[in-house]
Amino acid sequence: MKIKCLKSELLNGINIVSKAIPTKTTMTILENILLTAGDGEIKLLANDMEIGIETSINGEIYEKGVVALDERLLTDIIRKYPDNDVFIECNDEYLTTITCENTDMIIPGREGDEFPSLPKYEKENPLVISQFSLKELIKQTIFSIADNNSNKMMAGELFEIKENKLKAVTLDGHRLSVRNIELKDNYDDKKVIIPGSTLNKVNGILPGDINKDVNIYFNNNNIIFEFDNTVVISRLIEGEYFKVDQMILNDSDIKVTVNRKNFIDCIDRASLFFKEGDKNPVRFNFVDNKVEISINSHHGSMNADLDVVKEGKDILIGFNPKLMIDALRVIEDEEVDLYMTAFNAPCIIKNDTASYIYLVLPVKVN
Amino acid sequence: MKIKCLKSELLNGINIVSKAIPTKTTMTILENILLTAGDGEIKLLANDMEIGIETSINGEIYEKGVVALDERLLTDIIRKYPDNDVFIECNDEYLTTITCENTDMIIPGREGDEFPSLPKYEKENPLVISQFSLKELIKQTIFSIADNNSNKMMAGELFEIKENKLKAVTLDGHRLSVRNIELKDNYDDKKVIIPGSTLNKVNGILPGDINKDVNIYFNNNNIIFEFDNTVVISRLIEGEYFKVDQMILNDSDIKVTVNRKNFIDCIDRASLFFKEGDKNPVRFNFVDNKVEISINSHHGSMNADLDVVKEGKDILIGFNPKLMIDALRVIEDEEVDLYMTAFNAPCIIKNDTASYIYLVLPVKVN
Repeated sequence: MKIKCLKSELLNGINIVSKAIPTKTTMTILENILLTAGDGEIKLLANDMEIGIETSINGEIYEKGVVALDERLLTDIIRKYPDNDVFIECNDEYLTTITCENTDMIIPGREGDEFPSLPKYEKENPLVISQFSLKELIKQTIFSIADNNSNKMMAGELFEIKENKLKAVTLDGHRLSVRNIELKDNYDDKKVIIPGSTLNKVNGILPGDINKDVNIYFNNNNIIFEFDNTVVISRLIEGEYFKVDQMILNDSDIKVTVNRKNFIDCIDRASLFFKEGDKNPVRFNFVDNKVEISINSHHGSMNADLDVVKEGKDILIGFNPKLMIDALRVIEDEEVDLYMTAFNAPCIIKNDTASYIYLVLPVKVN
Repeated sequence: MKIKCLKSELLNGINIVSKAIPTKTTMTILENILLTAGDGEIKLLANDMEIGIETSINGEIYEKGVVALDERLLTDIIRKYPDNDVFIECNDEYLTTITCENTDMIIPGREGDEFPSLPKYEKENPLVISQFSLKELIKQTIFSIADNNSNKMMAGELFEIKENKLKAVTLDGHRLSVRNIELKDNYDDKKVIIPGSTLNKVNGILPGDINKDVNIYFNNNNIIFEFDNTVVISRLIEGEYFKVDQMILNDSDIKVTVNRKNFIDCIDRASLFFKEGDKNPVRFNFVDNKVEISINSHHGSMNADLDVVKEGKDILIGFNPKLMIDALRVIEDEEVDLYMTAFNAPCIIKNDTASYIYLVLPVKVN
């Protein structure tokens, strides 16, 4: 194999596929990036057996070939090169010379045959969504995914497609996030559970261009994201997701409208005195058109007043401040509406069109 | 006590003195900042018993008083406040209310009497140096200080004053750094050894203004730095520093001039294959007006050619790349001169005026 490409092209490609390099593995071949020069295309591939990412880069092919190169070493070498043409040449023993300007770096490569290839998939009827919308959707829901593996289903995000609607749902036992978006076309009904780690990785490499699309395919219990020159293939989580609709009831008789930024700032200050697991929540005392936000701990205490607009009766309710802030931070509206029923019932934050719905469970106030 | 000051003033002051908060201590009072309102001045003080930092901030004093407040908590509270007036009020039990806009934060303070005060010092005959020069001087020497405590003297930096000259020296057993600068005035001869940690902290809080000065006092085995509204007092290291002049001999018969940036870039690439303690250095083969920089390890190998200007015989010599790069990075000249004698003798990097001298010991090439 012998190729030439710009340092920036190569580094960009490496940064994309390296998201699929496992942090720990006993299969050392997975610590490599598979570099393929053939059929007029230079491709990079990484695959941790749960998610595989392939991207193609611009360059010139002088001699076709395939080699697996250590991802860490390759990244370091390319990073340390100047912004210029980089030549990669690999001999029959997979010894690979990476040259730029006056410098040769020579590293041992491995045979490409050892590398696990991506599963084949059918490119039929893609679900089409703009890069921007997908990136926003992930950002606005992924934070309430469970981060431990105690419950496999909670570590996944539901994508539910009905006609021209996509509903994304995450929950972790203390809160629930829903985003509803409209698609340009109609699709067959579909419900899949995508690993949170996959969506985090897609979010990390998706440029988020509003004028470019992502094609999503579902195939043999895999989900495939195609965008720009990149393909991401991930397994789906099997099973039936939680019944979400019955958790979000529309019977709240208290509605409070708050200024989002001021509300976040006060809760954030109160969070200084909140310790996870302390069972001492931040108290929200909604009285008339005021809320008093307070917390009392042995480290110190905090007290703040904010103007709000309230419909319905007064209520004193406690929350873990982190859960409230997480939801409020991903909303973009200046004013947000909170719906409550009682001190021991969930608070629901949503807009009129229900394009977002965030549910947060309260914590008992002593 | 009751005071008012701007959040930015307060936070700036906290950030300065917090450099003297110990990371680990059994004396919990040292984890506090002493806040003093009195005599028309608001002062902040921290003191880890090796170094003490005091700074004064602008504000209004409504009621004099002294209180010690937990540094971590105080920093977090002030950070989370908006850019506006902050009121601090402390009652007879040292319970302290910190108010900004609509929020009160209340934390327990401690009595000021428990706090170790700074030693008194005489403000006579300061050594005067511009903030800029002191910051540069520290940056250009501190990197070759020994970072472990195996040798107390090596963890200090020599300041040697003779007439209107200040010489700063650090060494760690593998290398040596010397900076010579001219002072505006003449001073009595003086030799002191300043803890490296002190200079790192001074460097961290010194604004580096070219038009403002630092006054340095020596007093009872302490060194005192005064600049802007800040005073830093640190103990000195007692003892006799290494005889440095005899290490830097002027008998080199090889002189090589290199382009600093290109030289650094090549050594930096070679460093990818260098492991500390491997006894496999980067090889520098100076032949005629070329240097071949190379390294061969079981991870891979590297080879680069650079044009140089050489006087004297050819030489093959090995170095730990990190030591070479550290010295070359703090030099600002485009071209630098290397002086060598033999493969087993130090390399000296210096300019014609000897305003900087860096000595690096070679590593045996197999």
